[in-house]
Amino acid sequence: MIRVGVVGYGTIGKRVAAAVGRQSDMVVAGVAKRSPDYAAALARETATPIYASDEDAVAAFESAGIRTEGTVADLVDRADVVVDATPAGVGAENRELYAETGTPAVLQGGEDADVADVSFNARANYEAAAGADSVRVLSCNCTGLARLLAPLDEAYGVRSARATLVRRGGDPGQTDRGPINDILPDPMGESHHAADVREVLPDVDIRTHGVKVPTTVMHLQTVRVRLDDPPANARSVRRTLAAEPRLMFVTGEFGIEGCGDLMDVGRDSERPRTDLWENCVFEESIELAGNECTLFQAIDQESDVVPENIDAIRAVTGVADAGESRHMTDRALGVGSLPTSPAHTAEVAPVDGDA
Amino acid sequence: MIRVGVVGYGTIGKRVAAAVGRQSDMVVAGVAKRSPDYAAALARETATPIYASDEDAVAAFESAGIRTEGTVADLVDRADVVVDATPAGVGAENRELYAETGTPAVLQGGEDADVADVSFNARANYEAAAGADSVRVLSCNCTGLARLLAPLDEAYGVRSARATLVRRGGDPGQTDRGPINDILPDPMGESHHAADVREVLPDVDIRTHGVKVPTTVMHLQTVRVRLDDPPANARSVRRTLAAEPRLMFVTGEFGIEGCGDLMDVGRDSERPRTDLWENCVFEESIELAGNECTLFQAIDQESDVVPENIDAIRAVTGVADAGESRHMTDRALGVGSLPTSPAHTAEVAPVDGDA
Repeated sequence: MIRVGVVGYGTIGKRVAAAVGRQSDMVVAGVAKRSPDYAAALARETATPIYASDEDAVAAFESAGIRTEGTVADLVDRADVVVDATPAGVGAENRELYAETGTPAVLQGGEDADVADVSFNARANYEAAAGADSVRVLSCNCTGLARLLAPLDEAYGVRSARATLVRRGGDPGQTDRGPINDILPDPMGESHHAADVREVLPDVDIRTHGVKVPTTVMHLQTVRVRLDDPPANARSVRRTLAAEPRLMFVTGEFGIEGCGDLMDVGRDSERPRTDLWENCVFEESIELAGNECTLFQAIDQESDVVPENIDAIRAVTGVADAGESRHMTDRALGVGSLPTSPAHTAEVAPVDGDA
Repeated sequence: MIRVGVVGYGTIGKRVAAAVGRQSDMVVAGVAKRSPDYAAALARETATPIYASDEDAVAAFESAGIRTEGTVADLVDRADVVVDATPAGVGAENRELYAETGTPAVLQGGEDADVADVSFNARANYEAAAGADSVRVLSCNCTGLARLLAPLDEAYGVRSARATLVRRGGDPGQTDRGPINDILPDPMGESHHAADVREVLPDVDIRTHGVKVPTTVMHLQTVRVRLDDPPANARSVRRTLAAEPRLMFVTGEFGIEGCGDLMDVGRDSERPRTDLWENCVFEESIELAGNECTLFQAIDQESDVVPENIDAIRAVTGVADAGESRHMTDRALGVGSLPTSPAHTAEVAPVDGDA
């Protein structure tokens, strides 16, 4: 059993800890946190060992009646692997502690690329993480792009990819982030996402723009891909994509027409925290005109990187190859299990005469 | 076992069906639905018997690959009690069917008060529903008010209650409802909520205003109550309210400062659909100045009426009294179980010298 320490117990950290708990080959050594809030109180209910960020924090937890097992240094000492899900920039500071103790570390896409030996996506470059001391899981939007582009590149060759990422302003509890009534170019010009995707798919010509809007649920991406060797029709593209467990087709036939509906699907399913770990690909939006394939996909910014973090743990410890790990992760979590499209199953089956 | 038919499988209906499934003394006879959407597809996964609203709908379900057991008339025929959670106005149309077959019916607060023999709140007037052919569960906001005012009235006498209900524009999937960037008096003047609360607490002098804002999560109420016989201090009020399982204290000490945080609490808990069935009373907001007690409470518009629907089923079938039913419902669902305030437990214990 791989003992996993989760440092940072916010949006990503608590989801990764819960996902680790559902794997048969790993166990949560503990979670480290800065403040004794409701997330800590709920973690206590599940008997998760809690560590404080430092000695001052230990005292704060104690006065809130929440027992801790020590500080983050103690947790790192007791873990085989650390997943660092602290706010952007803190991971870079923690990196030294992991290096000193020789503990392999999985960091997040909010950090700069040079925080780790290699950037990581389980579908695009799992093998590159073998034997690395540290890996950086791509951010939510970039994870969504890599999952889509890797199979398209394998099947048809991606000549170029252009995407606009319409991004939620903040997570549900991040009340003081904007915009509150605006549509913002962010940044003003090409966005960093393209460079991050190239970290895991170095040969893909990709460019991206980001836009921020006043919602708290999901990102919506428009993706436009030119293919080297396009198939005869969009149906073949759909079949290629439908074979990917982490691409979930959603359809207006089942009443799913936007991110609000997807949020409700998440709640109607029995998933932890109503998470949608898969890219939600709007089936009706998939079009092919000549060599140009276009589609919409929605990305749950809070949860899509969770399966990739689990795979990254296996990659750095060398216990499974890419296909094995993704299969174990998906089965343990239930990735690809939601009935969000009546056509999905049928589309997976080969059709005679399709290119 | 009480066989419960749920007619209307939207926001409320699907939650009531799930809650019925968790009770030891009732079972879901089936759910009736108009269209074969994702909610139907997910219901099929849990082996819930599905009925279509009419013969045309049966065909639509069939072509979507979702098996139905008949129409709503068949479901009513096979149920001991019906919970009608159809859109406002449809319950009034369905009422005749329930009366014809002599099936007791639980309707929702979106209907006019005269749709049923009696309006219902499990804390305020459970006994009034005994032997009724039909009851109407108060709407979400009114349920929240009745739960708060009933214990205050018992403990101190409510001389008058004034409330402003700041209401979300729509549920997460209701994309075409407004306002999208406005704060609307709605209605322009006193709101109907006061009259609805008087249906279950007829002696209470209450007046209400409603305001609509561009969010999809929760209502926030400011409540101002003048007491006939006020206690010595706000701490006593807190103790009185803390004894009510359906009033959940939430606090900034645990990082809960608004509805976005509450949404995240719901997700971090393991509740179905992340529902917050309780009134979420902001502990720090409870004040007492002379005989005037004030507070903020947030109401999950999608789920707070669910426990009341379960109790209403027991009330019309006469299988339990108010205290028994509320206890059974709360225990089966886990109402009152979340650690959202470090002080909650301490506050429940009597304190010497308090009035």
